[in-house]
Amino acid sequence: MSSPQVQPVLVGADFRASDASSTFAADNPSTREPTGEVYPVSSRKEVEEVVRVGHRASLALRDVPAETIAKFLDLYAGRIEADRGALVDKANIESALPKRPRLDDVELPRTINQLRAAAEAAREGSWALPTIDTKAGIRSVYGALEGAVTVFGPNNFPFAFNSAAGGDFAAAVASGNAVIAKANTSHPGTTRLFAEHALAAARAAGLPEGAIQLIYRTDHETGKLLVSHPQVAATGYTGARGAGLVLKEAADKAGKPIYLELSSINPVVILPGALKSRGAELVDEFSGSALMGTGQFCTNPGLLVLLAGDETETFVAKVKDKFAAAPVGTLLGKSVEDRLDHAVGALTKAGAELVTGGIRGGGKGYCYANTILKVTGARFLANPPAMQEEAFGNASLFVIAANLEEAAAVLSSLEGNLTGAVYSDAGGADEGAYRRLEPILRRKVGRLLNDKMPTGVAVSPAMNHGGPYPATGHPGFTAVGIPASLRRFAALHCYDAVREPRLPALLRNKSPNGKVWRYIDGVFTQADL
Amino acid sequence: MSSPQVQPVLVGADFRASDASSTFAADNPSTREPTGEVYPVSSRKEVEEVVRVGHRASLALRDVPAETIAKFLDLYAGRIEADRGALVDKANIESALPKRPRLDDVELPRTINQLRAAAEAAREGSWALPTIDTKAGIRSVYGALEGAVTVFGPNNFPFAFNSAAGGDFAAAVASGNAVIAKANTSHPGTTRLFAEHALAAARAAGLPEGAIQLIYRTDHETGKLLVSHPQVAATGYTGARGAGLVLKEAADKAGKPIYLELSSINPVVILPGALKSRGAELVDEFSGSALMGTGQFCTNPGLLVLLAGDETETFVAKVKDKFAAAPVGTLLGKSVEDRLDHAVGALTKAGAELVTGGIRGGGKGYCYANTILKVTGARFLANPPAMQEEAFGNASLFVIAANLEEAAAVLSSLEGNLTGAVYSDAGGADEGAYRRLEPILRRKVGRLLNDKMPTGVAVSPAMNHGGPYPATGHPGFTAVGIPASLRRFAALHCYDAVREPRLPALLRNKSPNGKVWRYIDGVFTQADL
Repeated sequence: MSSPQVQPVLVGADFRASDASSTFAADNPSTREPTGEVYPVSSRKEVEEVVRVGHRASLALRDVPAETIAKFLDLYAGRIEADRGALVDKANIESALPKRPRLDDVELPRTINQLRAAAEAAREGSWALPTIDTKAGIRSVYGALEGAVTVFGPNNFPFAFNSAAGGDFAAAVASGNAVIAKANTSHPGTTRLFAEHALAAARAAGLPEGAIQLIYRTDHETGKLLVSHPQVAATGYTGARGAGLVLKEAADKAGKPIYLELSSINPVVILPGALKSRGAELVDEFSGSALMGTGQFCTNPGLLVLLAGDETETFVAKVKDKFAAAPVGTLLGKSVEDRLDHAVGALTKAGAELVTGGIRGGGKGYCYANTILKVTGARFLANPPAMQEEAFGNASLFVIAANLEEAAAVLSSLEGNLTGAVYSDAGGADEGAYRRLEPILRRKVGRLLNDKMPTGVAVSPAMNHGGPYPATGHPGFTAVGIPASLRRFAALHCYDAVREPRLPALLRNKSPNGKVWRYIDGVFTQADL
Repeated sequence: MSSPQVQPVLVGADFRASDASSTFAADNPSTREPTGEVYPVSSRKEVEEVVRVGHRASLALRDVPAETIAKFLDLYAGRIEADRGALVDKANIESALPKRPRLDDVELPRTINQLRAAAEAAREGSWALPTIDTKAGIRSVYGALEGAVTVFGPNNFPFAFNSAAGGDFAAAVASGNAVIAKANTSHPGTTRLFAEHALAAARAAGLPEGAIQLIYRTDHETGKLLVSHPQVAATGYTGARGAGLVLKEAADKAGKPIYLELSSINPVVILPGALKSRGAELVDEFSGSALMGTGQFCTNPGLLVLLAGDETETFVAKVKDKFAAAPVGTLLGKSVEDRLDHAVGALTKAGAELVTGGIRGGGKGYCYANTILKVTGARFLANPPAMQEEAFGNASLFVIAANLEEAAAVLSSLEGNLTGAVYSDAGGADEGAYRRLEPILRRKVGRLLNDKMPTGVAVSPAMNHGGPYPATGHPGFTAVGIPASLRRFAALHCYDAVREPRLPALLRNKSPNGKVWRYIDGVFTQADL
């Protein structure tokens, strides 16, 4: 067999052979075998070129009307829809995520909808918070950055968070930026397919050359350059905490914004009244959420806080049976299996007790037994950092608190998380406990839920898929939810006494479309000035 | 003479003797002599206590209604107004800034107005961008952080940016946070006076103990702790770049937001048509702006870009005369005089030529001759970083570009700045040049001006007193302008399926005041749901 051809990168106007420093093989997690495709590790020289081209594209994008950007996003969404079969096949091979319902029925439609919502946001303009003070003669609006935005996508959403098609991509493009997609190495082929459609859509819409580029991998030093180069704008990163913090340090040092989604164990508190009145339902609800996608969601309920008692004992026993009986799903890759095994080991070493699972295997390809651990509140509080090790995948830790105050102490000891949920009695039985715990949990999480598991992140203007560090790098921003997600990749542009014909469209006296909400002299209005 | 008493710190409920590791003497820049007051350098232990108390206060503030916070801000503003004589006297002694018009007629009213505007913003709530998606059952709003916000105020605005009374203080309090004021050591007495009034107002309004605290100085390591401690929320810093970057590194490493205003040379481009039609006026306008407050404004026009020609020669000659004839103001302190002398030396070493000034003295106390330097565009471009050394004070650098393309190259080589201005012909003579330069300048600055000097930062909802790094640490935030400045010190709080009676007031079905703008199902409205 001859050595396979190395896949091309998208630099500047077209796909071309990479100036690769080395290569890596794509992997099929269901078979633990290479897919046969080989991808380049981009050299420092190539990354420097990508950055330079992206910077030039970002300057050219300034003269591109919002309508053209919206047109690109719509065309791109249409191309993805038309080619869904090939995309679903490729993503299924690379990620082992099921074609149905997951990839074809849920994630692909979501990805298309996000791109279309981003198109509408770009066209309409309210995301940019246009603000006019007629008395002072000052106007301001959010606008695109100088340089391209680099997007590092995670392994667990080959479509919806794909670096060349997902939420960060859509947000960065809709806010007027050029994008450098850094493919997740667990689905390079899926990302390449996306980038081909993006390139075709960009040409059809008339985006400047280099507005969308794609590379697959770099070494560590070159990765740091990609987030800190004087000519880059900002970075969106979703992935493992270790690599994310290395990039954060480099970006911070250079004064470049970097939006990170790093880890989250998503505490769920089930109060006694809820357990008493609907314990059996909650077994199903928790197990379904915890094992969905083999637990590989950023919002997977990894930490359950319960109060000691008979109902809790019953709940734990039933979840144990449920987990033991449930099929073991395939994990996204070798590193996920390895890290999960490592995390479960670390939790037991720190004092957690295995209820079920805790071993590799039991399914197809990379996999790990559905796992529950438990620990007392007192033991948890003896070493909260160790007990918060994220076991990404189909494993959760139950903390059994002796009483409400111990539960409060456990919540107080938590790091920042994306979500936190509280289940309580439908009547008033748990109100006192809710009022005690909610203020503590509220400040630890981005999204607070009632009587609902955290998996399932609606694309809503009111969504916050973010949270305090180390869940993300900044508690004020969300990665999901239009229009807010767009403002991450923007600068506040103020115009002081600038002559009216020279203002950007969103700040001219006449509204560009009659639809954008503008804050004019203290009033939000869609009217002309 | 007995050794003077060391001034107390405000920790927790009251002023008390500091657990000082050492002391420093306040200075009168007009006499170059100590004022006679001695202030403590807080120990690490004291800072740890301040942080702990601030954290506790931040949790207690959660139950405090917005009306109480607004009442505090209003009462505080009233107390400042009533005690203006003492505040102006003290600030005049510590800063050498003139009592009239500067301190009493301009900066004090501005400070009071900011506090009142912040009160109104807190009461009304639109700053928090309440967003409701009825279909998804999700609501979100910006809310206060966990832990206190530390404010480091600059030397150049003893009132309006004072760490215990200025813009960052007002924004942090109005968004519901506890504040630790770290006084600028050039006006500790002014800051202490403010803090006394703040404490009285906080008691009268019923803020929790420790909501407002004051220290004056720490050593470097303890300063780093103050911005990175697990129990602090965020930091606002306005000051010198070197110290700011040290704090930034510590805060970044801990994942704590830090908003920095570090330096800015505020490029002003005067195009030929403007010079031709109103050159004499522009001499006055520039000189007035450049020498106001002895040039000690963050938005001081430190870099003028001109095109070579006879009118430019005339302009330079007239500014030279103006600068030489103008009285030499007193600088804020020894370090300002030293740094200004250093910066002028560095600029001449890099190839700039002295037009006038360039020596210490000529006025009262700490002072430096009114200074103009000039350099050709080519010379500037030979070493742009060296040519952008900030000469904070009464000194500006003129860059004489050979032609429009050289001017474009000079602008392209600039770092991020707070402001950038372009003067052009009132008719169309400069339109081509404007169109060439504006896109370059736009992305380098937070606020773009036409035919107007950058000094004078209106407190407007449309203001951006911010800009790309290193002017500030993030291009999306402003330190001046309500409501946007409040969002720096806030986290996005999302509520997913949370029972309506448990929601914060701004997200309940009924509007809390009928005035707050809420984004409900895609429409900005003041109505109830």
